[in-house]
Amino acid sequence: MQLQFSPDFSKGQGLISAVAVDEGTGEVLMLAWMNEEAFRLTLDTGRVHYFSRSRNKLWKKGEESGNMQQLVEMRVDCDLDAVVVRVKQQGPACHEGFHSCFYRTVTADGGLVENAVREKTPEQMYGRKK
Amino acid sequence: MQLQFSPDFSKGQGLISAVAVDEGTGEVLMLAWMNEEAFRLTLDTGRVHYFSRSRNKLWKKGEESGNMQQLVEMRVDCDLDAVVVRVKQQGPACHEGFHSCFYRTVTADGGLVENAVREKTPEQMYGRKK
Repeated sequence: MQLQFSPDFSKGQGLISAVAVDEGTGEVLMLAWMNEEAFRLTLDTGRVHYFSRSRNKLWKKGEESGNMQQLVEMRVDCDLDAVVVRVKQQGPACHEGFHSCFYRTVTADGGLVENAVREKTPEQMYGRKK
Repeated sequence: MQLQFSPDFSKGQGLISAVAVDEGTGEVLMLAWMNEEAFRLTLDTGRVHYFSRSRNKLWKKGEESGNMQQLVEMRVDCDLDAVVVRVKQQGPACHEGFHSCFYRTVTADGGLVENAVREKTPEQMYGRKK
């Protein structure tokens, strides 16, 4: 795809933010990062790619867990340094086995309470704790 | 509020990512940053605060435009370095005058098309271009 606009990778040291949302419900599934390669691969292949800051490498979502994300639509923000990807999520998006990484809500007394049911254990997804 | 958990501000040089979503529709409104002070003020006051990377300062959303965000719920992600804030958004969330900052969709030919109607002009919100 020949892009007719230029995402701004400069502010994030080569990365833009990417918010993945469930194409059906609109629920926020995860927040991750894309470098230019991940951004282009996502648009060119229709499979969402990220750049892992902790592993410092390109990362095709689901390459290890099988929980891939099929791109339905990409939106860009006013500053061109963040995107929302609407995705068909295969399996849990979260490496903890929840549909969304945002499976905990802050309570009035400053604690955390789970707001969702775990779909799989990390062991079921990765064969080990992750 | 006495927090019973510790957000991880270390990976983002003192900042965590914050995704604001419309409490009614769930639409992603914007993506911004919180330092520890912004995070605590958001929980303690019920008004969403961010940290502006470009201006390098604490920023109470709407302090200039009037387009405040009232916190309805905060969710944290698996790594404790990102939050989703469900908000009652007063006026447009975007400084360009759209309800959401993600008002443009990437087209199949690599262009951008607006997916929403502008609610206000920047001049109406700020008295000048911003």
